[in-house]
Formats: sequence, C-alpha cells, structure tokens
Amino acid sequence: MARTLITGGLVVTASDELHVDVLVDGGRVVALATHDSHGWTADHVIDATGRYVIPGGVDAHTHMEMPFGGTTASDTFETGTRAAAWGGTTTVVDFAIQPKGGSLMEGLDAWHEKAEGGCAIDYGFHMIMSDVNESSLREMDRLVELGVTSFKLFTAYPGVFLSDDGQILRAMQRAGSNGGLVMTHAENGLAIDVLVEQALARGERDPRHHGEVRRALLEAEATHRVIKLGQVAGAPVYVVHVSAREAVAEVAKARDEGLPVFAETCPQYLFLSTDNLAEPGFEGAKYVCSTPLRPADHQEALWRGLRTNDLQVVSTDHCPFCFKGQKERGLGDFSKIPNGLPGVENRMDLLHQAVLDGHIDRRRWIDLACAAPARMFGLYPRKGTIAPGSDADIVVYDPHAEQTLSAATHHMNVDYSAYEGKRVTGRAETVLSRGVPVIVDRAYVGHAGHGVYLPRGLCQYAN
Amino acid sequence: MARTLITGGLVVTASDELHVDVLVDGGRVVALATHDSHGWTADHVIDATGRYVIPGGVDAHTHMEMPFGGTTASDTFETGTRAAAWGGTTTVVDFAIQPKGGSLMEGLDAWHEKAEGGCAIDYGFHMIMSDVNESSLREMDRLVELGVTSFKLFTAYPGVFLSDDGQILRAMQRAGSNGGLVMTHAENGLAIDVLVEQALARGERDPRHHGEVRRALLEAEATHRVIKLGQVAGAPVYVVHVSAREAVAEVAKARDEGLPVFAETCPQYLFLSTDNLAEPGFEGAKYVCSTPLRPADHQEALWRGLRTNDLQVVSTDHCPFCFKGQKERGLGDFSKIPNGLPGVENRMDLLHQAVLDGHIDRRRWIDLACAAPARMFGLYPRKGTIAPGSDADIVVYDPHAEQTLSAATHHMNVDYSAYEGKRVTGRAETVLSRGVPVIVDRAYVGHAGHGVYLPRGLCQYAN
Amino acid sequence: MARTLITGGLVVTASDELHVDVLVDGGRVVALATHDSHGWTADHVIDATGRYVIPGGVDAHTHMEMPFGGTTASDTFETGTRAAAWGGTTTVVDFAIQPKGGSLMEGLDAWHEKAEGGCAIDYGFHMIMSDVNESSLREMDRLVELGVTSFKLFTAYPGVFLSDDGQILRAMQRAGSNGGLVMTHAENGLAIDVLVEQALARGERDPRHHGEVRRALLEAEATHRVIKLGQVAGAPVYVVHVSAREAVAEVAKARDEGLPVFAETCPQYLFLSTDNLAEPGFEGAKYVCSTPLRPADHQEALWRGLRTNDLQVVSTDHCPFCFKGQKERGLGDFSKIPNGLPGVENRMDLLHQAVLDGHIDRRRWIDLACAAPARMFGLYPRKGTIAPGSDADIVVYDPHAEQTLSAATHHMNVDYSAYEGKRVTGRAETVLSRGVPVIVDRAYVGHAGHGVYLPRGLCQYAN
Amino acid sequence: MARTLITGGLVVTASDELHVDVLVDGGRVVALATHDSHGWTADHVIDATGRYVIPGGVDAHTHMEMPFGGTTASDTFETGTRAAAWGGTTTVVDFAIQPKGGSLMEGLDAWHEKAEGGCAIDYGFHMIMSDVNESSLREMDRLVELGVTSFKLFTAYPGVFLSDDGQILRAMQRAGSNGGLVMTHAENGLAIDVLVEQALARGERDPRHHGEVRRALLEAEATHRVIKLGQVAGAPVYVVHVSAREAVAEVAKARDEGLPVFAETCPQYLFLSTDNLAEPGFEGAKYVCSTPLRPADHQEALWRGLRTNDLQVVSTDHCPFCFKGQKERGLGDFSKIPNGLPGVENRMDLLHQAVLDGHIDRRRWIDLACAAPARMFGLYPRKGTIAPGSDADIVVYDPHAEQTLSAATHHMNVDYSAYEGKRVTGRAETVLSRGVPVIVDRAYVGHAGHGVYLPRGLCQYAN
Repeated sequence: MARTLITGGLVVTASDELHVDVLVDGGRVVALATHDSHGWTADHVIDATGRYVIPGGVDAHTHMEMPFGGTTASDTFETGTRAAAWGGTTTVVDFAIQPKGGSLMEGLDAWHEKAEGGCAIDYGFHMIMSDVNESSLREMDRLVELGVTSFKLFTAYPGVFLSDDGQILRAMQRAGSNGGLVMTHAENGLAIDVLVEQALARGERDPRHHGEVRRALLEAEATHRVIKLGQVAGAPVYVVHVSAREAVAEVAKARDEGLPVFAETCPQYLFLSTDNLAEPGFEGAKYVCSTPLRPADHQEALWRGLRTNDLQVVSTDHCPFCFKGQKERGLGDFSKIPNGLPGVENRMDLLHQAVLDGHIDRRRWIDLACAAPARMFGLYPRKGTIAPGSDADIVVYDPHAEQTLSAATHHMNVDYSAYEGKRVTGRAETVLSRGVPVIVDRAYVGHAGHGVYLPRGLCQYAN
Repeated sequence: MARTLITGGLVVTASDELHVDVLVDGGRVVALATHDSHGWTADHVIDATGRYVIPGGVDAHTHMEMPFGGTTASDTFETGTRAAAWGGTTTVVDFAIQPKGGSLMEGLDAWHEKAEGGCAIDYGFHMIMSDVNESSLREMDRLVELGVTSFKLFTAYPGVFLSDDGQILRAMQRAGSNGGLVMTHAENGLAIDVLVEQALARGERDPRHHGEVRRALLEAEATHRVIKLGQVAGAPVYVVHVSAREAVAEVAKARDEGLPVFAETCPQYLFLSTDNLAEPGFEGAKYVCSTPLRPADHQEALWRGLRTNDLQVVSTDHCPFCFKGQKERGLGDFSKIPNGLPGVENRMDLLHQAVLDGHIDRRRWIDLACAAPARMFGLYPRKGTIAPGSDADIVVYDPHAEQTLSAATHHMNVDYSAYEGKRVTGRAETVLSRGVPVIVDRAYVGHAGHGVYLPRGLCQYAN
Repeated sequence: MARTLITGGLVVTASDELHVDVLVDGGRVVALATHDSHGWTADHVIDATGRYVIPGGVDAHTHMEMPFGGTTASDTFETGTRAAAWGGTTTVVDFAIQPKGGSLMEGLDAWHEKAEGGCAIDYGFHMIMSDVNESSLREMDRLVELGVTSFKLFTAYPGVFLSDDGQILRAMQRAGSNGGLVMTHAENGLAIDVLVEQALARGERDPRHHGEVRRALLEAEATHRVIKLGQVAGAPVYVVHVSAREAVAEVAKARDEGLPVFAETCPQYLFLSTDNLAEPGFEGAKYVCSTPLRPADHQEALWRGLRTNDLQVVSTDHCPFCFKGQKERGLGDFSKIPNGLPGVENRMDLLHQAVLDGHIDRRRWIDLACAAPARMFGLYPRKGTIAPGSDADIVVYDPHAEQTLSAATHHMNVDYSAYEGKRVTGRAETVLSRGVPVIVDRAYVGHAGHGVYLPRGLCQYAN
Repeated sequence: MARTLITGGLVVTASDELHVDVLVDGGRVVALATHDSHGWTADHVIDATGRYVIPGGVDAHTHMEMPFGGTTASDTFETGTRAAAWGGTTTVVDFAIQPKGGSLMEGLDAWHEKAEGGCAIDYGFHMIMSDVNESSLREMDRLVELGVTSFKLFTAYPGVFLSDDGQILRAMQRAGSNGGLVMTHAENGLAIDVLVEQALARGERDPRHHGEVRRALLEAEATHRVIKLGQVAGAPVYVVHVSAREAVAEVAKARDEGLPVFAETCPQYLFLSTDNLAEPGFEGAKYVCSTPLRPADHQEALWRGLRTNDLQVVSTDHCPFCFKGQKERGLGDFSKIPNGLPGVENRMDLLHQAVLDGHIDRRRWIDLACAAPARMFGLYPRKGTIAPGSDADIVVYDPHAEQTLSAATHHMNVDYSAYEGKRVTGRAETVLSRGVPVIVDRAYVGHAGHGVYLPRGLCQYAN
C-alpha cells in the first residue's frame, strides 16, 4: 500500500495543536514529525499548508434506512455514508433494531445486510432493544463479543420502543456485568402521549405543537429516572440527544456526584429552536424530531455543558425524511410527522462554526466530534485521533472556506436542509479513510463498499 | 348541651402557648380568656393545672380493615378509632379504595359502610384510585363535592395499585382543575419487583431483605417523578410516608423552587430503622411496611425536614397485621409479608417524646400532628386547633406522665407493638370529641358511633 | 382602665382567621369569643363589621433621627412613631449606635434620650456595634439583660461601621453564649468601595450608578460569609434588608441545611427597582438605599422567599432624608447621597396590597409584618398577635378602602414618598396601643410619650 | 547536539497511551513513530521496553529557600530541583515574593538571583503580591510581559500576606485585563486568628490544634469569596492547595455555572490527614501546613474532584522545614510552627500509586501532574507532553519498581519525610531535561545550572 505524506498543516486533535507532518503507510498513521526533522519520502504528498489536519469525524448516532412510522429514513447506508464523507466524517455508528418479538441477532443480521458493501466509510452498530426479556438479555453478552457494545433503550414511544423501568433496570444490570453501555432516549413517553392526545383534541395540530407537548420537564424527568436506574444497577448511562436545559442540569448533577453518566447533544439543538418549528405553513415539519427543538434560550445551557464536559459528544441523530411524501404524512396531525432530521454531512462544519462563534475552542471541536465519541464507543485510538498506529482517517480541513448550507448542494438523499441558507466558514477539502482518498479537493473519489464493519471495544470512560 | 370549662392549663396550639381557660359549649369551643378575667360558670369544669390543653390529634393516614395481600388489617374502624382516642387522636382520615374495574363511588360506599356507626371519633376519607380511566376521572369532581378531596395514586405495587405515568398525569390534571389533592405513594414499583425477584432467586428471603430491595434511590426517583408530573399538570402533590433522605431532598428542592409540593413522614421512620428489620428470626416482619424502614442515619434528614417545614405532616400509615397468622404469611418469603404497622395510638406520644428529645419544639409538635394535617386536608379550623368556633376536640395532656409502650397495654387490635418496651414521657389524660368526653382520666367513656363522617374542604396550602 | 369590646370583625393572625369578638381590659386582650356566645359589656364598643381585626404591626428595622453622612434622618422618634401608628404599626425596634471609640451603653443611653417621652407607640432597641473589642464584647451580656438582645454588625461601610471578619466572629460567639442575635448588613464594602471609586473616576456620578456598583454578587458573597461565620461561631444570624436574588439563594441553602439563619426584606425591594434609580434628573436619589434596589426580575425571588419562609420578616429600614437639602448632598456624586428611604407608614398597606396581588395570603401578611418580627426579637406574644394576655395593640383594618400613597398625605416628616401616586387598597382605620386609641376612624388621637420602652426577650426562633 | 531514540516503551500522555518510539534531537522531541515503521538511527538509544515513557512532571507550586516565620525553607533551588529530578519532575514554578513596601520587580529580581545557576531542571516564577497598590498593580502588566503570568494573593495570614477584598478585587481586575491569572490562598485568616488566639488561651498548644482552628468552613468561605470577587472582576481564579470537601464543593458549583475557576490540591491532602497531625508528642508538627490536613473522610471528595475535573492540578506546595531546629520553633505553641511540608520528590510516585489504587487512570495521572499544570501556567506544549516540537523533558518510568519513601533515601534537604515508611510501586528510572540526561538508571548525572528560567505564556484554560 502506498505511503502518503501530509505536510505543512496544523494537526489538531482533542489534546494538541501541532505544526507537524503526518506519515501514512498501510492505511495507518505511522509517524508524526516536525517538518524539518525528517527526510521522509512518500508516494503521495498532500500539501496541507494553511489547512488543519484533523481526525475524520465520528458520528455515533445515525439512522440510515430506518423504518419509522410507516416510512423509512431516506438515506441508505450508501447515500448516507457518502454524504458523511463529504462532511468530513469517516465513521458512523448506526442503530440496528431488535424486531418486536424477535432476537437481537435478527436485528443485527438485518442491519449488516443493509450496510454491507454499500458504505463509503467505516461503520459500527449499536443495538436498539425493543423487547427486553430473558432471551434478549442473554444475547447482550454475545453482542458485546461481536463488537456491538452499546444498547439503546427508550422511555419514550409507548407501544413501539418503550421499555418499562423494570426492563431498563434489567438491561442496565446486564450491561453492568458485561461491560456494555446502555444508551437511553429519555422522555416520559406515557405522559407525553396524554398531552399529545389532549392537544389534538383541542385542535392543536401544527408542527409547533410537537415541541409544546414534549415538555422539557418530561425530558428532565426521564433523564433523572434513567440516571437513578443506572445507579441502582451499578451501570453507566449514556443519554442521547439531550435538548432541554433541565436535562443538562440532571446530567451535570449526576456527574458532580461522580456517577458514570454521559450525554450527547446534536447540532439541531445548538443551532435551531422552536422558532423553526413555528415556521409558517407546514414548514415546521422539517424540524420535527424527538427530543424536540427547544426555545432558543436553552442553547446556552447546552453550550455550557459542552464546555464544562457535562456533555461529552455531539452526534447528529441523522434520520432524514423527505418533506414531500414523508414529512407530509403529518399534515393536519403533528403526531404523524416522521421524527427526524438530516445532518450527518453538516456536523463537522457547524461545530467548526461554533469555534469561530466562540462557543468552544478548536481542540474541543475535535474532542466532541471525533475523539470523545471514539472513546465512548470503544474505537479510540483507532478512530478519533491522529497518532502513530491510528487508522489514517484524516481530513484536510480548510478553516477559511466559506459555504452556504443548502439542499441544492448537499449530498444527503433528502429534499431539504435543516440549515438552508446558513453561511458557515470551514470545509473538509480532502478526506482519507484508512489512508485511501474518499474526497480529494472537494471531489468524491470513494466507492461504496470501501467502508468496513467496525467491531467495537468497550466504553473507555466507564470501564 | 352542657357547657364545659377547662381551666388552669397551658393551651398549646401550632402557633401559641397561652395560659388561658377554654370554654366549650354545644360541642364547640366558644371562648378563650385569661384565667382571672372571666367569671364563667359551666356544667363541667376540668382542672388542667400542670397539664397541656391541646387540640385532638388528626391522623391523616390510616387503613382500618384494609384488605391487603389476601388478608385484612386487624383494626376495625371501631377498634382502631377507639385506640386513636386513647392516644389523643380525635380525627382520622382513612383510605377508601376503588375496586379494580369498579367506580370510585363503589369504593366510597363500601368504606362508608365499614365505618358508619362504629367510630369513637370523627373520620373522613381519601380515595385510592386503582383504575384511572375516563369514567373514574369524571367521578373525581363528584367526590370533591362529597368532601373526599384527596386522591391517592401509586407508582408502586404493579398489578395491584400502580398507575402508569400517563394515568397519574391525568388524575393530577383533574385535581388541578377541581381543587383536589393528589397523594402519591412514591416508589418505583417496576424496578423494585425486579430486585425482589432477584433477591428471592438468590435465597434472600428474610424480612431484612424487604428493606434492601426497596432502595432509597427508587423512592427518591419516584418522588422526583411525581413532582415533575405535578409540575406538568399544574397541580399540587402530597407525598405520603417519606422515609429516605434522598426523597426528602427531592421534596426540599421542589419547595425551594416554590412548587406546591407537600409531604408527610411517619413515626416508624423517625424512631425505627433497618436494625429492627434485621431483628433475629422472623421478628423483623413486625416492621415490614412500604416505603420500608431505612438505616438509622436517614432519621436526621427527616427530623431536619420536619423542622424546616419541608415535611409538613406526621401521619401513622396505621395498617396493623397480627404477627401470628398474618405477618407469618411471609415466612420464607419476605415479599409475602403483609405491609403495615400499627401506630395510630402512639403518634401523639412519640412526637411529644421528640419534643423532650430536642428534635422539635412544642408548637411544632401540635402543628405536625394536628394543625397541618387539618389544613392540608380541608378540616381546619374545625379540627386541628383550639379557637372560638372550633370543634371541641381537646386533649388534656400530662407532659410528665411516664409510660412504657407495649402490646400488653395498648388498645389497638394487634398482637404486637412496633415500639415494645419503649419508655416515653407524656400521655393523654382526658379526651373530648366535639365536647363529649371519650377518655376521662385514662378511662374510656366513649362509644362506637359517636364519631361522624367529615366531608372535607380543599387543601388550604394549595388553594 | 376601661374595657373595650371589638365586635363583628374578622380577626386575622398569623395562624388563624376567625369571626370572633375581642375583649380588651387593662391594656391587654383578655378574651376571644364567638359573637353569640358571650354577654360581654364594655365601656367602649368598636364595631368592626366588614373589617379585619389585626395585631398592630411590628417594624423591626427603623432609624429615627439617625446621623448618617453628615446629616440626620428627618423623622424624630415623635414624628416617626406617629406616622407608624397612622400606618397600623404599633411597635418599632430602632437601632442605637455605639459611638466609635465609645461604649455600647453610651450609645444606648443616647438613644433612650432621643426616644423617651416622644413616642406615640411602644419601641425597643437593637444595638449597632461600631467597635468590637474586649470591652464592648463584655457589654453585650449586660445589654441582653437590659432587653437589647440583638446586635447589628456591618460588612459594609469601611471606616464607618464595618467590622472585620474576626470582629464579627467574636461578636457572634458572644451572642451564641448569651442568647443574643447578630444581625448583619451583608455587602462586601471593601470591594464596593473599589467599584465606587472606579465609577466616579469614569464619570459615572448619577444615582443609578449607586445600584450598579453595589453588585448583587457582593451582597450574596457577604451573605454567604456571615452565614459561615455564624456556623463557625455556633450562633444564629439574621440578615437585614436582603434585596438580591443571589442572596436569597444563600439564605435558602443555609436553611435547607438546618442552620439557624434568618432574613428580612423590605417593601422597597418588593415594589421598587433599579428603574426607579434611573428616573430622570436627580429623581433617582429618592431611592438610594443600601442594599440597593435591584432589577425588577429579582422581585420574584423575594416573593418566593417570603412564601417559602426562607425570608421571615418584612421590615422597612425606615431612614428618611428629605430630597431638598439632604438627598441633594449627592448631586454630582452618588456616593454622597444619604442612604435611606421613608416607609414606616406604608409597610402594612403595601403588604396588604401584596395579598390582593396574590403574592402572599392574608395570614402570611400578618406573620411577616407582626408575628414573625415579634417572635424574632423576643416580643411575642406580648406583641404581634391577638390572644388572651397579649398587649391590646390592635388595628381595625378596612380591606376595601382605597388610597393613593403620596407625600401630600403621608405623616412621615419627609418631603417625598417613595411610592408617590401608587394606588393601594386597604387602610388602618382605628389603632389601639395597649388598649388606648391612637388613631380613631382615621383621626390621630394619640400623644407623644404614650409609647414605652420595650425590654425584649431572646429570639424565639433560635433559642 | 546528539540524537536520542527512546524505543519500545508505552508513551503515556494526558490524552494517549501509545506503543511508539520517540526521537529526540537538539533538546526537543522531533518525531513519534510506530516501532516497526521507521529506520531511525541515534547517538543514544534508550530501551524503554516494559517501561512508561512520560513527560517530565510539572510542579506548579514550590517554595525553595522561602523565608517564613523567621526561618527559611530548607531546600535551596539547587537541592530542591535536584530532588525534583530524582522524582521525575523536570519543571517547577516557584513563588517570588514582593517585599512589603517594595516592588514586584524587587521580589522577582531577588528570586532570580536565588535560582540562577543552581537549578538541575527548568523553572519559572509566580509572583506573590504582599502589597497591592497603584504601583504594584501597574507592575503586573510588566511581569506578564516577562513571563511571570500568575499572581498569588492571600485571604490568610493577616499582617503578613493578607490582602483585603478591595485589593484582591483590584488585582483580579488587572489580571482580567492583562491576561494574568490570580491564584488565591483561600482561608479566612482574620477569623482563624481569633480561633488561634482562643485555642492558645485555652491551653490548646499541640500541633493537632493547628488543624482544628483552621476550620474547613473557613476555607470554604474564602473560596466562595474569591470566586465571587473573580466573577465581579471578570477574571479567572485559581485556588491553591484545596483541602476541604466544602471548598471542593464551592469550586464545583462555580464550574457548573461555567465560571473560569480552577483549583489544585496536593498529595498531602490526598494521602495524609488530621490523624497525622495528632501523632504523639510533637510529631504532628511535621504535618503542619496551611490549608491544614483534614479528617480522612475529606479525601474522597478530593479524589472525586480530580476525576470530575473540578480539580485540575496536583502540585506539592513543597516548602520543607527541618523537624530539628525549624519545626521545633513551635514547641508549646502550634501557631509558631513553620507552615510547610516537603514533597517535590514524591508527587509523581504518589500519583502513580493512586493509579494502582484505582483513584485515577493512567492518563489522568499525567494530566494532573504534567499537562494540566503546563497548560494552566502557559508552558504547554513545550512542557507537559511528548509531541513533536516539545522540549525533550522525558521520564522513563518503571511502573513495577517498588520503593519505600523515607528521609533515609530521599534527596530533599530536610530531615524527615511526610510519608516515612510508605510503600509505593513505580519509580522514575531515567530522566531527560531538554534531551540531556539528569538521572540515568537511578544515578544523578545532572548538574546545577542546567536548568533555565522559563518565561511563561498565559493560562491556556482561561484565555
């Protein structure tokens, strides 16, 4: 395999900013050196002068081809991972789903089948448990061995994904013993369903009501609950897509007590708000996801949480549904709008914009987007950093390039952008996956099937 | 009706300690005056020199004749209210139970039938909702009109009393609109059932395991949850039998935020502990109740909560089961021990002992035991104080009398005392109910049927 | 002495609302009775039908004739106590001041001289300690014996009143041993003086800058500090004139921990704000006091604190300076504006308005304004309530009378009102002091010298 | 300059654990590479197989040759930095002291003179401000330019180092504008002096009373105070030698709010306790330092703070005084015992032991001891890590070597060890300073004068 030398750039990782050259061989980073100290030769030389050289992004929360509410997320593993690469992300961890009444392995097999041969970049799987019982609890051990080391449970979506507190406790206990990590969608779904029904009965049927019925207090309540269940189980907890200030507070409190509690938020909660849900007509449907967008004054708590490390990861919860035909299923009834937003392509750039906006610093950008998710989900230092021995998942990032986010130019398979018209500065210019170019100077040169399945190790924060 | 003059005593109410004489006429207090200012004559004069003259106790949480786990609480309304009077309590509020699949009215009627004609003192009812549905929600309004203004819901006991969070929210919303007060038994029953099953599977079958599986964190979790549901519903919440330090903290936090959250604890949590549950042999079964007794170091948080008014009421949760034949149902399986303790006769004296022990002051004693429960449950100032216009429910209390609590001498219909052998100082000497003597100089002169049903007004703290 | 009967009113105390008649004899309340139960005769009968019958107000924080910044508060004991009576207040506790380098007794004697023979209502004294040393510490014991049971220390006003933390600790230790109560003016005066100097240097010289330099954080800091010093000393602490949300939070936190920490706020913090300080021209000077007025959004925390009992007392800190000639000393330099507002006449009415506005209930009104200050400063039940044995300090209050607060109509000796033009509902109609009429049907019938000195007992919350 | 290759070891930094080889040239690290990817040659090869290769320790808090209480710390810069090297520390930041009445520059010059030509390793300076005034405030800007970017102020030691709150505020404001960092010794010295005087008056004269009078609450109070002053000034705050659980809580609370508040603790607070202060006879004097050692149950809060990053740095506060002749000055009067402990040689090993004891993980060891102090005080990445471009301050650390800490074997110039007899596992085997061997295979090969002064940049967490 060819040797590649990336020279002249500023290597930014979660811990360091170094003017060093990077030598890639056999798909891996083999050496870092000061520019004038080495006499390396290489088959390919990438001149990164004036650029950042950063680890490829790790998006730990995507839903490609996910069936939801009678339709299916519009990005396949092929289109979705290609878009990810465009955006500087070189690893996704998607969610396989246990079929109700079926086994975890059935779900995992089905998702392997969807992904295999189609991916432009590497991928791993979490497992959604739809049916916690003696048999599926036993299967958890097997999945950990197979590199599926994280299990998502829901306090939301009664009748679909919701597990009751006894089931959640059992799954946490099992994870506590096999090293797995329980991820939770924390909203009180039973209470929310009451409010949904009452809102519809009152004739409140527009997308903005989606944000109103899914009360922040009910996210906070469920967040507190899963934290306490984790404490009883003696197991770590990872709370997905935290959006409410009050939920951040619960996580922060638990972490102050030294509990192994972790949490992510997503770009949509940082950059969008209920103002978007209230856009005229049915436009708000574009922004329907759960947990919902919150009033803009919640954003400060999220940014602060990202700075104080009460929130460790920014994922996308990428789950796109086309406005036409898909989102429209909820015309006249917000509760029928498929839940989800596109975003896998935008995350790295939006967070770079946050650096420019002063919310986080450059190293924290890489930590939140690359290193922390890799550590959290057992991929570090193979993924998430640039160090001798790491996979050569490397992005040459132009911090000065300006772009306008738009459905007209994005590569996700969805007919709208949640950030339509937003100007951001910074863009992935060249992207390597295990040393192989996927994007070169803003041209896609990758191919479906390059990406391989990543069996993952255990959470490195909790074990 | 005869006039009675109580003279020479120290009248202690929740707000005052006054050396005044009390004039009773027509079953009510009609006047208070300084001793030497009046020239009152009366048919009966009670010399209370050296005694306290206090309002009769209001025990807002009793379960007479309550069916539970295949057996029935051993005190009838007749025996239980007589014992209450012996202990200086002149009002009980008991819990009527909606039968599963039946209506609230059916439950209320059944409890009226049990109580009517049997009671030595006055009584009211709360309503336990076993089945929250459209019909029972509508009935709540009717019950409020009938003076049953409080509704108990359970997050514990799955399959028996547990309501799910959606049901609890609906009941709270209804109470929020009709002025009713939702009371909650706050423990995460679904999680506890998992721990019970696992403990039994490990062979942990003794009474002390009852205390271990019903984790303090799971009481705190459910307490937090019902508080948040109340906040969403815009309704007040009253948490019954708080026993864990962590649950007190949740209540205190809510009250700091100004939320209408209220709570009681019980003498058993203040004076007993897991040490009792761990007494040799099967003795621990005597102390099995839910929430369970906690390690002794939780008591300080409860006393502090009583002093800081984070806890407002001390009730007994009186629910006696004989050791022989009833508690023994759980020999070899703690989960089959009927849950409950006797206590209605001991509350006033134990709390007076707490005054002597320095935990609370004299006025707080009367507040916790008389005034606050009367205000909380819509009976004040008819009950709970001594003021012109109040019912003449009056206790002449000897603060110096010493006694030893014992099943040998108590009047509750149960074969053991939870406080066997405990020495306390203070005792009700004479007890009037609406001006009528029930206990005179430690002799019972009352009769079954004197007590009348008390339709109650709304909670005076929340409305 | 004549017997007086007050009949037909609603007697409102901190604990009760009762339709009872009140019999006064020999300057004291001797009996309460239901209207139709008694056959009392009296020399005077006051018909209180449609009125409240309430205890006379107890204003625990006034500064009559106080020297400050080269001038003197404009109300004498004569004019100030007369105005108090007009407003339904029948007791004031004023502050005697230890002269720098002098003894406590010198200060007390000087204040006795000012007050004696001039007061329309009864009065007591706190002692301001300007010079904590071995001698003045010893004198504290003597003052407690003389009924001066509370001692005010300042963390503010360097060079004038400020005591350093070592001095404050010593005074607290002494109070901890002799039962006295240390009151603190809690602002970090040393830091504030830096900010004052810097503001003046920047040309920020208007009254509104007074509010800006006396930062809320610096009130919170000092509040925390005196609480910790009290904890080290094992002594209770009473924080005067709390105005900042952050300071309320410190008090609330301490009380949650069970510490004997108490606090008052004043009407100006509840009804006025930095908007007043920013009134055009030099108008803002009328509102200059310390602690300063805060932005209006602090008020909610104060009201909540009053409801949750984290704040127990509302006093006025009455310290009037005329706009002409006195406040004007600070033209062009806010730091020279004498600190203080008039208010002793308005407190009862403003708090009644707060009842109408829904901030507090009727009993809490009486608690905050009458009962709690009387208990706090060792005057209860002689003052602060209506009960057999109490001084007959009674106000017949018309809850429906409307009035407009104004310097044109008020009786305080000051040329402006802090509440000029404010409409409130409710007014004292008739006022008795120890059974003697002072105001009758809105006419002043009292006389200078009726009021007597009140030696006070110990704080009833802390001992 | 010679090239050195360190091969076969596990390179542990704050962020990574990598099996890589390290190439050193010209005193700096020039490259890292996987072992089998490079064909590097070097003048010297260090075989680190089975060893850790870690950055040299950065001890940000030492007091060499410091005058205190009439005597002088017993380590000179020569002996102290040599001992540091023995212990794997390659950078110290010591405290220059402004003389009372003198300038900052005078103090800095004096300390330069002490250090120059004597140090075995590199060193920088903080500046202790003994006299905050217009002139010294202006000098702060100049010192920042000279690489003295941090300024220590005391709320303790009245009459010696104490600055009043106004002075502290001014210094913080200046630091806020010039990028400097204010460090605070946070204890309420005025209150402590009262308690000292009272203890001595009661005849409490033994070393253990040192720990009793310097109350944890008074550390917490001052910690809270300096945090609030920093908030008012808009400046970051670094709290030195945090020892009390309650002080950790104040820091944690501030950080939750997003304030730029930082803190260190020291090994003595993690491994020693008041039990040591209470050792028989005068032995306790060995452990007298301020803040004082706390009861052992405070340690858990410190460890948790180190894990949750509420505490970022572990320094030693190395300030040795011989037991004979120096500590003995306080025989019969604990207040005369010179305050300080030796420790610069033990820090790296004690924290490695903490890794083995499970308190922290390996990377956190390096973060607390190397990277974080370097970032905090503007030395990173020159110091504190191993990366291309860093100074080749490298320790080959044997994680399996066992040793017993003892004055008999240590290299600090003091006649006792605070950890006498303690067994620990792990030891620095070879130490390079800027590529030059100082310790080779446990033999000292360095020389006085090798170490150079380090002008420092600004705090990297706050700017």
